[in-house]
Amino acid sequence: MATTVITNISSLVTNDPSLGAGPLGPVQDAAVVIDGDRVAWVGASSKAPATDNRVDAGGRAVLPGFVDSHSHLVFAGDRTAEFNARMSGQSYSAGGIRTTVAATRAASDEELEANLVRHLREALRQGTTTLETKSGYGLTVEDEARALRIAAAHTDEVTYLGAHIVSPDYADDPAAYVDLVTGPMLDACAPHARWVDVFCEKGAFDGDQARTILTAGAARGLIPRVHANQLSYGPGVQLAVELDAASADHCTHLTEADVDALANGNTVATLLPGAEFSTRAPWPDARRLLDAGATVALSTDCNPGSSYTSSVPFCIALAVRDMGMTPDEAVWSATAGGAAALRRTDIGRIAPGTRADLTLLEAPSHVHLAYRPGVPLVSAVWRSGVREV
Amino acid sequence: MATTVITNISSLVTNDPSLGAGPLGPVQDAAVVIDGDRVAWVGASSKAPATDNRVDAGGRAVLPGFVDSHSHLVFAGDRTAEFNARMSGQSYSAGGIRTTVAATRAASDEELEANLVRHLREALRQGTTTLETKSGYGLTVEDEARALRIAAAHTDEVTYLGAHIVSPDYADDPAAYVDLVTGPMLDACAPHARWVDVFCEKGAFDGDQARTILTAGAARGLIPRVHANQLSYGPGVQLAVELDAASADHCTHLTEADVDALANGNTVATLLPGAEFSTRAPWPDARRLLDAGATVALSTDCNPGSSYTSSVPFCIALAVRDMGMTPDEAVWSATAGGAAALRRTDIGRIAPGTRADLTLLEAPSHVHLAYRPGVPLVSAVWRSGVREV
Ligand SMILES: [Zn+2]
Ligand SMILES: [Zn+2]
Repeated sequence: MATTVITNISSLVTNDPSLGAGPLGPVQDAAVVIDGDRVAWVGASSKAPATDNRVDAGGRAVLPGFVDSHSHLVFAGDRTAEFNARMSGQSYSAGGIRTTVAATRAASDEELEANLVRHLREALRQGTTTLETKSGYGLTVEDEARALRIAAAHTDEVTYLGAHIVSPDYADDPAAYVDLVTGPMLDACAPHARWVDVFCEKGAFDGDQARTILTAGAARGLIPRVHANQLSYGPGVQLAVELDAASADHCTHLTEADVDALANGNTVATLLPGAEFSTRAPWPDARRLLDAGATVALSTDCNPGSSYTSSVPFCIALAVRDMGMTPDEAVWSATAGGAAALRRTDIGRIAPGTRADLTLLEAPSHVHLAYRPGVPLVSAVWRSGVREV
Repeated sequence: MATTVITNISSLVTNDPSLGAGPLGPVQDAAVVIDGDRVAWVGASSKAPATDNRVDAGGRAVLPGFVDSHSHLVFAGDRTAEFNARMSGQSYSAGGIRTTVAATRAASDEELEANLVRHLREALRQGTTTLETKSGYGLTVEDEARALRIAAAHTDEVTYLGAHIVSPDYADDPAAYVDLVTGPMLDACAPHARWVDVFCEKGAFDGDQARTILTAGAARGLIPRVHANQLSYGPGVQLAVELDAASADHCTHLTEADVDALANGNTVATLLPGAEFSTRAPWPDARRLLDAGATVALSTDCNPGSSYTSSVPFCIALAVRDMGMTPDEAVWSATAGGAAALRRTDIGRIAPGTRADLTLLEAPSHVHLAYRPGVPLVSAVWRSGVREV
């Protein structure tokens, strides 16, 4: 396999404390050698070994490809009108998630796949090299399994979210819907997914229902992750920690007991500021979680209703502006933090042996992701050693 | 000259109420004909005339190129460390604007021009086809004139801002600096500029000084614009209206009298949310200004200290999220509003006779600029009829 060296990197974020000081493990005037799909060497640019190919970073910064550990990209339809009405202060008889469910059910496999691929490509151009995505807009056995099959063709990180909302078909009998989600739907979906997720929230699934669903999924080998404490206080976060879920996502409304649980458990707190931005909701308090010792990930929640951004750099800028994160912390959370939320050690870092997922910025430092909000700064992206952007 | 038709535009923002309903004058299923550097025809895609060239917009949206009427792009140096310290809650013996003044004075003409061109190109890729820029990091006769000469080679909208801060060289004698700004510096600068501007704020220039400087500039044919009421209440806004300035910029702290003055005068209120974003300051209240009847423009304030974004789409998203603007209002303010702030009628609209400055989005509607925050949605840009992106 061909080897490539990227030289003249002004500042390299490795997220490997053995390579540089602090959590980001930064190396100045660095070089990285890629061998096939892996990182083979990291060090001073002046000491870079000879390789087949050579790329000059031109004094710009390199960091690990972003790990976006939370998105909803198997969908059809558009909710522009609903967004426009919400932001314009107009009433709108919004179907919310149901609108997307109807459009998704009506779409062909080819339409769903093309839409997913378009969004994955859009995310890749913005530096995202790993992207988790979920079902949850089908809510029938066939439609959920179809969504997961389509997702699994394009990412390893596929989440079964039959429990996104109670299917409109079961509005009068939510218990029967939970039986479906933990029975025939789980049978059909488990082979295509790595994770099981529940929207644990008033109006969706309560703590007991969430426990039933996550436990059933875990019994089939799916690892739990939970939409927890987004719109209100609730049992989601503590349930996630109790079940050793990989991640509790949103964490917008947290009690002291919730924070303690996250700080003392193995569950990552995944914050999704795109949702708060696009719904004018209060910000999750990243500072409080970090100060307590919790592991924090930062992701987009990209979906057509509440957070239609695929931009991890945008989420980094919000986290710094509004959630009390330093630029270093936000960049760590969007790379190594996302990897932790997906229980991956091969991504989110740049060190010998890791997957060669690298983002070259049009800037001398990773701090520019917050310093230059909204500006497309991604100049090149390698994924599994292949230059994609 | 060659003619080009852009067909199959899902939604065309013209900002011409004679072409469609309301301020945005939208036309659905539209086409636009470009003849040389001008728009020659606007209408239904099915009725588009034959032309030399044909571009299929593929059911995507087109709007006027953004008019960014406020930036500071003749500078050198970087203030990443200062930004990082501010956002991380660390103290930093920041020189603020003085840091950039020192770096700018030390830079060669070629370095300043290359930096300006790089930022103009970056803005163009994000849909900005007209960009005003200012001096203000030289603060000597030679350095201010040099900045304006360099700017004038790249944009028609050049602003003399010798009165950005009192030059450090005159710290003990601000009155002498005002004499310089209104005397020899004005003599050297007036030939290169269209506008005169003052930072009217505590710690910079008070109302009397600002009046002296703006009046002197006006006597030399420069039209006033004012940095007004950014950090605190003050005389800037009412002075701007009194002097018939084209624009009062920032407008973050407004009394009822300030709002009344803007609503009843000819001065545009230019809001710069990038500055509030990057300094964690309170948002200007666009809703209040619009409801009072003021004309509102939206611009980036792109500069290396307080707002290092060149992204008008990012400012649109902030204006909708945090300043009470509807998506339609924000898009109008970033196009037609910017043109009004520059007293231009040939840009900011798409109608027969206007300059052919058009932005094609990777989206079916201009609402996506707010609906999809942070996502680079600009797919193609024509400036003066030339496809640039
Ligand atoms: Zn979600
Ligand atoms: Zn300014």
